[in-house]
Amino acid sequence: MKNRFALDSRLQNDTDFVIDLQLCTVRLMDDAQYPWLILVPQVADVSELHHLTETQQSLLNQDSNLTSLVLTEVFNPETLNVAALGNIVRQLHVHHVARYSDDPAWPGPIWGKQPVIQYDSKVKLKLINTLQQAFAKLA
Amino acid sequence: MKNRFALDSRLQNDTDFVIDLQLCTVRLMDDAQYPWLILVPQVADVSELHHLTETQQSLLNQDSNLTSLVLTEVFNPETLNVAALGNIVRQLHVHHVARYSDDPAWPGPIWGKQPVIQYDSKVKLKLINTLQQAFAKLA
Repeated sequence: MKNRFALDSRLQNDTDFVIDLQLCTVRLMDDAQYPWLILVPQVADVSELHHLTETQQSLLNQDSNLTSLVLTEVFNPETLNVAALGNIVRQLHVHHVARYSDDPAWPGPIWGKQPVIQYDSKVKLKLINTLQQAFAKLA
Repeated sequence: MKNRFALDSRLQNDTDFVIDLQLCTVRLMDDAQYPWLILVPQVADVSELHHLTETQQSLLNQDSNLTSLVLTEVFNPETLNVAALGNIVRQLHVHHVARYSDDPAWPGPIWGKQPVIQYDSKVKLKLINTLQQAFAKLA
């Protein structure tokens, strides 16, 4: 029997739901230091980008493009980091991070650099709402 | 007048040519600590993935998939890191890194972690030849 997609428990704990797109569920990383969204293709048992089908890759591109537009609109960053790493969480997920030359990890990568600083819960709810509106507007 | 594509000088210095694929030129990062290829879409003045056209993204996917297959065939890694960062070099380029749980940066990202250790020149030439053969075989 084919497995069903289920979000990895570590991703579940470290992130909050924002929106479901064509292929991916979009989650906000609970780290107030960086505007940081994680796209998780809702496909069971996939750990590498090149294991997606051509159609799934095309949908992921579209979801990724929209996410990049949303991050650009909401945060106006200097650049975006888009990365599938998977050294710790093997379930395929693609980081989208808005970067600034005065952020705590610049110009290095953000992963494993600074300990996470969680959002204040009201700030987080407001941010998720802002992101949801931007996804709706730009879709 | 439209600019023509020219490889960023830092990428030129830090990497060696391996092969040209459909959209990207493939370069070997001169760091013997990690099997590390960099794909540079041969498109002028592009710094972000989502600024590529749909057709260019599709070609990049195909080039990326092939590169992942080559790294898997040649190095048999535990996972691949695929990332467009661009904090230092703004020209769009996509890292493809074969990772192992006993590599020097595991489970962290490789960028900015350890100082580069350049290949012995004979070892590098042999590796580039091996990679070229794998690209030819798997294309």
